[in-house]
Amino acid sequence: MASSSTAPTPPAAGDVPFDQWLDEQRRGQHHTVRRVPLQALPGWHFSRDTGDLVHSSGRFFSVSGLRVTTDYGTGEGRPHSWTQPVIVQREVGVLGVLLKEHRGEVYCLLQAKMEPGNLNGVQMSPTVQATRSNYTGVHRGRRVPYTEYFTGDRRGARVLADSLQSEQGWWFLHKRNRNVVVMTDEDVPALDGFRWLSLRQIGALLRRDHLMNMDSRTVLSALPPQVLPCRGTGPGPAGEDDALCSLTEVLSVLADARFRYELSQEQLPLREVLESSAGPWRRTGDGIGRDDGRHFTVLGVTVEAQAREVARWSQPLLAPVAGLAGLLVRRVGGVPHVLLRARVEAGTLNVAEFGPTVQCSTRHLSERGAHRPEFLDTLLAPRAGRVVFDTEQSEEGGRFHHALTRNRIVELEETDEAAVRALPPDFCWVSVAQVQALLRHGNYLNVQARCLMTALTLATG
Amino acid sequence: MASSSTAPTPPAAGDVPFDQWLDEQRRGQHHTVRRVPLQALPGWHFSRDTGDLVHSSGRFFSVSGLRVTTDYGTGEGRPHSWTQPVIVQREVGVLGVLLKEHRGEVYCLLQAKMEPGNLNGVQMSPTVQATRSNYTGVHRGRRVPYTEYFTGDRRGARVLADSLQSEQGWWFLHKRNRNVVVMTDEDVPALDGFRWLSLRQIGALLRRDHLMNMDSRTVLSALPPQVLPCRGTGPGPAGEDDALCSLTEVLSVLADARFRYELSQEQLPLREVLESSAGPWRRTGDGIGRDDGRHFTVLGVTVEAQAREVARWSQPLLAPVAGLAGLLVRRVGGVPHVLLRARVEAGTLNVAEFGPTVQCSTRHLSERGAHRPEFLDTLLAPRAGRVVFDTEQSEEGGRFHHALTRNRIVELEETDEAAVRALPPDFCWVSVAQVQALLRHGNYLNVQARCLMTALTLATG
Repeated sequence: MASSSTAPTPPAAGDVPFDQWLDEQRRGQHHTVRRVPLQALPGWHFSRDTGDLVHSSGRFFSVSGLRVTTDYGTGEGRPHSWTQPVIVQREVGVLGVLLKEHRGEVYCLLQAKMEPGNLNGVQMSPTVQATRSNYTGVHRGRRVPYTEYFTGDRRGARVLADSLQSEQGWWFLHKRNRNVVVMTDEDVPALDGFRWLSLRQIGALLRRDHLMNMDSRTVLSALPPQVLPCRGTGPGPAGEDDALCSLTEVLSVLADARFRYELSQEQLPLREVLESSAGPWRRTGDGIGRDDGRHFTVLGVTVEAQAREVARWSQPLLAPVAGLAGLLVRRVGGVPHVLLRARVEAGTLNVAEFGPTVQCSTRHLSERGAHRPEFLDTLLAPRAGRVVFDTEQSEEGGRFHHALTRNRIVELEETDEAAVRALPPDFCWVSVAQVQALLRHGNYLNVQARCLMTALTLATG
Repeated sequence: MASSSTAPTPPAAGDVPFDQWLDEQRRGQHHTVRRVPLQALPGWHFSRDTGDLVHSSGRFFSVSGLRVTTDYGTGEGRPHSWTQPVIVQREVGVLGVLLKEHRGEVYCLLQAKMEPGNLNGVQMSPTVQATRSNYTGVHRGRRVPYTEYFTGDRRGARVLADSLQSEQGWWFLHKRNRNVVVMTDEDVPALDGFRWLSLRQIGALLRRDHLMNMDSRTVLSALPPQVLPCRGTGPGPAGEDDALCSLTEVLSVLADARFRYELSQEQLPLREVLESSAGPWRRTGDGIGRDDGRHFTVLGVTVEAQAREVARWSQPLLAPVAGLAGLLVRRVGGVPHVLLRARVEAGTLNVAEFGPTVQCSTRHLSERGAHRPEFLDTLLAPRAGRVVFDTEQSEEGGRFHHALTRNRIVELEETDEAAVRALPPDFCWVSVAQVQALLRHGNYLNVQARCLMTALTLATG
């Protein structure tokens, strides 16, 4: 693997500064993304049987229809029902980060990677970000580098975390990716486009908008506590006994939501969603959308790039309205706790997962009479607290077009009434150490909550 | 709740011996179960649209169709596909056991309960065994006793375990029940039909055939180690460091199976399964079955009972061929380990779960050329080891007719070659303490493995 184009293992003596390196990567990964009407998207077509938008190989993913019936979020407990387009991608992919310890610091091998939906093209991605099709070569592209550290005997690397985690439940049906962290003792050179970054460097990059992509943020949430640099709001010596609730009680809050709420999911032909006179979804001139502009549209792009697995391809992207994901944090006896909420989303695999304190789209919040989520006002303007994190991040640019989510973390003082009020149903104060215990397992925290936990543990303090 | 018909809280001074009490319960719960052709089953009909067998209320459960495509178990990795009938029961039920400590012993409140599929009518069931319909009164029957210890503030009882766990993946699509264990400090009288039993008594009852029902066996697998009586093959002081693999490596074996195997599940109209000329499933004179007699049939029964929620009802039951579930155990440095296998089943929610070492139907094992599962011969006749548990148990009598599974546990000596051979894919030696850590969470162990763990920790040594 070593060649003249590789940089040495960390610390990268002689490396150019990160920003200069990233600029070079952006220039080197020159690409164009051009909008193409869905009905003219090369390689894709609306299936004659179902109207689903599918690839001619039958693989990758499809845009299908979903009928959801749930009594979550209705207030009075009577189920409501709707249909919507949804991305179906049954295949489980891998998001893998390779770690290496050097002189007491932990380094991650990350990759500057262009994704067509990113508003700025290139962002920092995990060591390996691949669908099973990438592994098996359906893309007919180049071999994915570093996969040997994540399969088989992993070249002797130790696995520190390995679980299947969900992705956006409002846009995907039952989507999961395998999030893997491995630690190697080998000297692993960074190939062109890759770079070893310390966790402290990554913490600083997380505080900048649209730099660490969603895949990096989710897989870094699985870092075990023993490799994390200890910081202010990061985990202190918080064993289970120091938390407000036992871990069993936390698990019970989620089990109760999974028992109590009905969530019926029926995959439908997309045609039934788009041709229903009762529903708001329509084929538009070049895509799929709603008259009222809510939620998302689906559009098509053709990408020409030099440094992607294949040099030219076309694909649909889901373009959502802007979102907000916010976490309230407080210390109880010095132990940091976060306020999580069990949430049912349209495509959740197992009824409910914990999401952040606040999770909503922001487009219609300022309208008269708009529903304001619980704790939103505290998140935006705490009476007694401080903003410890506030950046705008991108959702996965391989599926989503300019999907911007404001990530905000507010640490409340004990005197803020939101810190001590009786909690509405489905909310639970969970210690950071308990969240880290949950993150060893799949489908406990949704992707928004996981990304906020990465920000909290690596980028605050 | 106290009345003249209640027995005192444990120890039940003046109680009649258990077997005499159970005989009285069997006599008191006199009932008849009569076979009725499915097409004449009161309250049930084959849906005109789909051919699914459904209840007129639209609730409870249905017998529908399933198309499965998977590359698990094919050897050469090419996916195979089949259709089959499947029970669909989206509603999550509760299996709850109430515990109480008395003079250093832990007691469970269990219930003598008749289920129509049990070959012996009454077996011992959890404190609460209820669908959400039971809670909400769709059965129009009596209120389910003791539910107040499992909902809301639980009358102050402490929750010791609470997770959603899967049930038989070959017969159910995505079925889960909530398994809950709570510990009360109150004096709780046992109503008629209920009885406080110590964990040691339960251990003895587990060694008898068809006495502890499946719901009891699965929920008791969630008992946390601190309430278990310490026994021979039970958990010793086995922290994570004493195990052959780290817990992260164990989790990684399952994550790898969930990533590697394809499992596509498409719910179909039952009519398509039964009318396919390519498939083996047919409507028979009074039910559903296959020409070759494999797997299961579906039949109908009408039940008349005195002590059930409603006095008379009819329902379909799935009648499977007999099965075997077996666990190999060995000590490594004194620490007990069990051999688990990641398994993909037709109706698994999340691709794969850990099952026992051996899990198969036994009907065709003796045929010439029949496939013999890995480790079957060691389980049946170990070269160097001893049988520590071997009973025949019933699967859930509310859904299954005379569903008999031989539960067998063999402890291998280190000198048995099966104890030290290189493991085939998907197998993993996991310490008992690690399994108990997994059992805090849902969908790691399938129901056969959970029932065997209950036997191992409560009934061996």
